[in-house]
Amino acid sequence: MASRDPLIGLLTDFGTTDWYVACLKGVIAGVCPRARVIDLTHEIPPQDITAGALNLAAAAPWCPPRTIFACVVDPGVGTARALLAAQADEQVFIGPDNGLLSLVLARARRRTLIRLTNPAYWLKDISQTFHGRDIIAPVAAHLARGVRLSSLGVPATRYQTLPLPVLQKAAGRVMGQIVYIDTFGNLITNLPVGLLASSRRGALRYHQHSVRVVFSYGDGRSGELIAIAGAHGFIELAVRNGSAAARMKARRGERIELWAASRRARPS
Amino acid sequence: MASRDPLIGLLTDFGTTDWYVACLKGVIAGVCPRARVIDLTHEIPPQDITAGALNLAAAAPWCPPRTIFACVVDPGVGTARALLAAQADEQVFIGPDNGLLSLVLARARRRTLIRLTNPAYWLKDISQTFHGRDIIAPVAAHLARGVRLSSLGVPATRYQTLPLPVLQKAAGRVMGQIVYIDTFGNLITNLPVGLLASSRRGALRYHQHSVRVVFSYGDGRSGELIAIAGAHGFIELAVRNGSAAARMKARRGERIELWAASRRARPS
Amino acid sequence: MASRDPLIGLLTDFGTTDWYVACLKGVIAGVCPRARVIDLTHEIPPQDITAGALNLAAAAPWCPPRTIFACVVDPGVGTARALLAAQADEQVFIGPDNGLLSLVLARARRRTLIRLTNPAYWLKDISQTFHGRDIIAPVAAHLARGVRLSSLGVPATRYQTLPLPVLQKAAGRVMGQIVYIDTFGNLITNLPVGLLASSRRGALRYHQHSVRVVFSYGDGRSGELIAIAGAHGFIELAVRNGSAAARMKARRGERIELWAASRRARPS
Repeated sequence: MASRDPLIGLLTDFGTTDWYVACLKGVIAGVCPRARVIDLTHEIPPQDITAGALNLAAAAPWCPPRTIFACVVDPGVGTARALLAAQADEQVFIGPDNGLLSLVLARARRRTLIRLTNPAYWLKDISQTFHGRDIIAPVAAHLARGVRLSSLGVPATRYQTLPLPVLQKAAGRVMGQIVYIDTFGNLITNLPVGLLASSRRGALRYHQHSVRVVFSYGDGRSGELIAIAGAHGFIELAVRNGSAAARMKARRGERIELWAASRRARPS
Repeated sequence: MASRDPLIGLLTDFGTTDWYVACLKGVIAGVCPRARVIDLTHEIPPQDITAGALNLAAAAPWCPPRTIFACVVDPGVGTARALLAAQADEQVFIGPDNGLLSLVLARARRRTLIRLTNPAYWLKDISQTFHGRDIIAPVAAHLARGVRLSSLGVPATRYQTLPLPVLQKAAGRVMGQIVYIDTFGNLITNLPVGLLASSRRGALRYHQHSVRVVFSYGDGRSGELIAIAGAHGFIELAVRNGSAAARMKARRGERIELWAASRRARPS
Repeated sequence: MASRDPLIGLLTDFGTTDWYVACLKGVIAGVCPRARVIDLTHEIPPQDITAGALNLAAAAPWCPPRTIFACVVDPGVGTARALLAAQADEQVFIGPDNGLLSLVLARARRRTLIRLTNPAYWLKDISQTFHGRDIIAPVAAHLARGVRLSSLGVPATRYQTLPLPVLQKAAGRVMGQIVYIDTFGNLITNLPVGLLASSRRGALRYHQHSVRVVFSYGDGRSGELIAIAGAHGFIELAVRNGSAAARMKARRGERIELWAASRRARPS
């Protein structure tokens, strides 16, 4: 039986309109022809590190052990910012040290950080504008070929974190925010689903609305704004057969409150 | 010679902006690393079962025998609707029983339907909102590994059909509709190309316009609205070097009449 | 060690909304199951041959030797225009003879052109509207299987070139144009980076603006319009942390002047 082909996941803000993603894939195919590539997404809003970090954190747990993630949302390209390769539990993440990797690193039980300083695994000529192609992609492909993480550079001990909003707590409620709005118009908050009681009792408050917590989209009435335990591990607001974002004219950063089950959801 | 890697086609309404498609691919790679994945499209308008069914029917005939199609356009996720896996001639189709699979099933000469009830081939924890990831993707990957269709659940005998408009016939003409508008602005009707005489004589009537049936885009004059035998097996209206949809302000559901060759195309 | 799987790059103007790209991939998988497919892009504006040629020229150098490129931007489909397969140095390019392949062919040191005339390597039934699926994709897959280029048809000696704007030169300056605007709003010109002195001194003139040439995005001040040596080999204009296209209301075809280092960049 053939050994398993190595798997590389790509996450960028390049879009798919232009040749940028193709360059990454071409470089990878040249260095490690056996590598298989999964597109996580290339539609991160340009230079939106938070969106990139959230998407990476949502997708990575569903990818197999030993997957190598090459991540490029890099407004600092060409400046002195570091590039990292990090073993986090069973997977490897490569990208700029600007917070993009911070959510997956923060939740890892074990992690090893390497700052990419060894040009032996980069392309020969390094542009000032496209380190994704010149450094991150070939490093990912060399790892896929079996190069050891420690060969890529020097150990690092710290990484940049993301300026994600901190949850605030008060008697009977937790206050978070909308941190991402997905393509369906679902409103993803920074409230972990662990805050929900297993009974799903309780409610969210958003603008002047009290929002029922239900088990599934199907439990909502058509058009009703509901809250569910999203597949990514956070509470999200949704409208059954519709777009919560359009219905609520929602924006990132808006405040969401989670009320405990024992309180009236909507104070009057 | 190595055996052929199994092939899985994905069709969803997830878009490619977010992490949803990546989860499917990650799950598949975990269950069956040898599987190769083709994206049919992920741009089905959200919850538009008809568009999904048409796209699936248009793409599947060009994919090899034994291709496994994992299809997720699923407004009923989390409710009691069934999930099906169906052998249809030489290919396998997996998805919700909501009409999405009905066009490919209806034209199959032989079909075997299984209702997915065996959680042995699902992810361990099943969310209420993402059965594409938790059930459909792993089932597709297990089939790719060689699991038998009959192991997936219990036999089913019926499937939901699509509320596609029925063709109406009158003396000398057949009345259909625009059922899909593609990315080029071509207007796809529900009039099968078999209705066209081999000579391509005859014409369509659309709004107040008589539309010539021609052999290829190139046979139209620049800017002319023409009708051709589309690659998907239906008559489509197109504008050479332009968008028929933009030119005609076309909408799905508009009526199209096909006039027989022996009649004047545009009665006066 | 297993032999390397053949690699096929796809570039089309089909978009990813509909089933068109899936048909190409299905046909390829049927003819050559071992072939791996890279999407260069499918977002070339419909029938925009120049955009297709630029994208192809930008991506191909980063793909490995022996990559086979199947290219479909083909407003003449169904007319008498020829289809070509061309060996250009170590790679093979297949597409309509309408200028789409001309940039990669022009810079090759060695090239062999074949006009596709042998239907043995096409699909059995050839539509009038979709030669990408019926001819170009299966030809690419047969090449991937090891069919010789010369078997595909008859030798050709000439190919259509692209009506790209010619650089104009005057004392101390070279005049070019914006030929492409990418998804980040960067303005790609037809001024080769070889025109820049290694010192990067000099400046561009665009509208009433003098534009500094810098080494990287990071060297620009936030919001400043800058010029850099783009990764594709042409000078491009960019705004750090922003969109040059939006800021300048830029359009393709606008004139850009490159002034030599020894002149004042902005005559007053």
